[in-house]
Amino acid sequence: MKIDAVDFFYVAMPEVTTDADGSQDALVVRVAAGGHIGWGECEASPLASIAAFVTPMSHGACRPVSASVLGARLDSAADIDAIAAKVAYDSMDLLQAPHTWSGIEMALWDILGKARGEPVWKLLGYQKAFPKTPYASRLFGNTPQETLEGGRSARAAGFKAVKFGWGPFGTGSVEDDVAHLDAAREGLGPDGILLVDAGQIFGGDVEAAAKRLPALERNRTTWFEEPFHAGALGAYAALGARTSSFRMAGGEAAHNSYMAEHLIDFGKVGFVQIDCGRIGGIGPAKAVADYAVAKGVTYVNHTFTSHLALSASLQPFAGLEAHRICEYPVAPRQLAVDLTSNHIVPNANGEIVIPDAPGLGIEISAAALERYRIDVRIEIDGKPIFVSPHA
Amino acid sequence: MKIDAVDFFYVAMPEVTTDADGSQDALVVRVAAGGHIGWGECEASPLASIAAFVTPMSHGACRPVSASVLGARLDSAADIDAIAAKVAYDSMDLLQAPHTWSGIEMALWDILGKARGEPVWKLLGYQKAFPKTPYASRLFGNTPQETLEGGRSARAAGFKAVKFGWGPFGTGSVEDDVAHLDAAREGLGPDGILLVDAGQIFGGDVEAAAKRLPALERNRTTWFEEPFHAGALGAYAALGARTSSFRMAGGEAAHNSYMAEHLIDFGKVGFVQIDCGRIGGIGPAKAVADYAVAKGVTYVNHTFTSHLALSASLQPFAGLEAHRICEYPVAPRQLAVDLTSNHIVPNANGEIVIPDAPGLGIEISAAALERYRIDVRIEIDGKPIFVSPHA
Repeated sequence: MKIDAVDFFYVAMPEVTTDADGSQDALVVRVAAGGHIGWGECEASPLASIAAFVTPMSHGACRPVSASVLGARLDSAADIDAIAAKVAYDSMDLLQAPHTWSGIEMALWDILGKARGEPVWKLLGYQKAFPKTPYASRLFGNTPQETLEGGRSARAAGFKAVKFGWGPFGTGSVEDDVAHLDAAREGLGPDGILLVDAGQIFGGDVEAAAKRLPALERNRTTWFEEPFHAGALGAYAALGARTSSFRMAGGEAAHNSYMAEHLIDFGKVGFVQIDCGRIGGIGPAKAVADYAVAKGVTYVNHTFTSHLALSASLQPFAGLEAHRICEYPVAPRQLAVDLTSNHIVPNANGEIVIPDAPGLGIEISAAALERYRIDVRIEIDGKPIFVSPHA
Repeated sequence: MKIDAVDFFYVAMPEVTTDADGSQDALVVRVAAGGHIGWGECEASPLASIAAFVTPMSHGACRPVSASVLGARLDSAADIDAIAAKVAYDSMDLLQAPHTWSGIEMALWDILGKARGEPVWKLLGYQKAFPKTPYASRLFGNTPQETLEGGRSARAAGFKAVKFGWGPFGTGSVEDDVAHLDAAREGLGPDGILLVDAGQIFGGDVEAAAKRLPALERNRTTWFEEPFHAGALGAYAALGARTSSFRMAGGEAAHNSYMAEHLIDFGKVGFVQIDCGRIGGIGPAKAVADYAVAKGVTYVNHTFTSHLALSASLQPFAGLEAHRICEYPVAPRQLAVDLTSNHIVPNANGEIVIPDAPGLGIEISAAALERYRIDVRIEIDGKPIFVSPHA
């Protein structure tokens, strides 16, 4: 097969708010090769990722992503690796390129799986896909009472694990955060798995983050996610060394596998969270999963958008039975629900079963692509270089 | 002062080739604040960087760079730091944001310097700007003979140091590379400073790069730059440990100060090369210079474009007398020459003297902005969100 066409669909909710909710827009990628159609999704900032595909070349090490993709051969996983290497080299100086490439890469796996009649996790070398325990990902409430109720409703919906993040956490006093952490545990009940996501609020300030340690420990937190800037590896390691009751988590910002490996080796995280829509797709995510296994670190997906992105993000660790917990967007905006015709829903045990269908096993709704469509037109010297396609 | 306006000028040569020559296009940024005008330059892929400024918000942690910049207060270096922190946080998920912000940040320093009547290096806390020894940055020739002649002509032009990079290096046999390294030394003469830039050609393959070590040692190379992917910290450290006759160099890809610090701490480079047009501007570059001093590593600018970018890139280490060598684009495309009305030229000793003038001390040519202008128009749902301005 050859890659015949790559189309980008920018979709968004009618109103996009400043909530830290990544399901408010999406960049869906459709790839055509050898008569097959594959779908992928780039994480965040659709316009910038479209620009990285169509931009004029700046020089030999700053070519548009399109130059490495269109017309390339696609018959094997090795072909995907080869295109990935070409993007990394020829778009070296184009910072946005890994995000653009991520969505395309997912679609290439989807095509390869469809062509072979096999789920992507089999193409990755796994014999079996083990069910995952989903955690409900929620924002902290505006008040501790709201946080408590959020925990209760997540448990009532059948989730054993709940992650609270962002919102007011870290923006006010230590006492405020303690009240939220106590409320989270109370709402969750004594046997729930409590995960906390600080959303980088402490920058690089280890002492500020450390003031929350006693309440995190007392409430039996399983992980403390992204207290710091994604690059502040020393701060992650320093804070992690101050507690033995839980582990640091991070990695969603990694835009290549090296960054995730450094977070493991130098940031000493216990959980590495990979967003397939940013790291360059499923291939580098699988490499990180292998690395995590070797280093005794738990691999977790990072997914806050559609079930297309969710399926893609589950493939890299589908066969790792001991890496059990998975992020599951529990209350996404309607766009993310409508975007796919089928969904990955918890089974009777409250577990997530990864699709056992060709490719990623998710159908995109053409109607949703039209309904939420954002029409983009980019012209260079009066000539259009990108015009939003219709589904 | 308040930041009143930010304008982007995308300029390019009539023909852009696949040469690894970053002077073929440019994204020049003009900022207006308090009646002053400042200028900056973003490194690489103008369209993607424009998109990161104007893109609609995806969510609270993925806002356009414009949201943090327009209307912000600008009265001190601390104000620039505050805007930088806001960009890092509010555009956390917008990968291209640091490149866009870099050019704006330079312009803010330019304005602050003009408002105070002081060069930027004084605002950074330096009492004196020491002259630098420029190295001529060249591509390897297509043949060893061309490489030899390149070395000779650089010496004839008065350069004591010459860097050869990219071109055929690493793409053919070990013998080919040995011939080029021998030719480079011969052309340079026995007393010239030889620098070699492999342009990431070895990916993460330490053994392949190591085969070039004997010829690099024999030809008394001062640094071996970017043999590997910018993130392959372990490979840099492993290769560096195999020789004591020269040091590894890298850092141009760093898009925040953490990345440069990790290259020092974990990649064990001896030279850290910072591009102010990528790392987030002059402020984080100065932080890396301070870090390099503390760690016994030599700071070097990375600059392959106009003399506006050159001036910006010299400010962060202007006052470091012992960090003497500087990159000087010796044969840029005509665009990069024409872009500024004044230039930084070697003095009678062949040294580079950093401008002692308010701000960055470089005037932009409005005529060149028009002559090389690339006209960009971006529409969302039929409404223009960016239209190239006229100078």
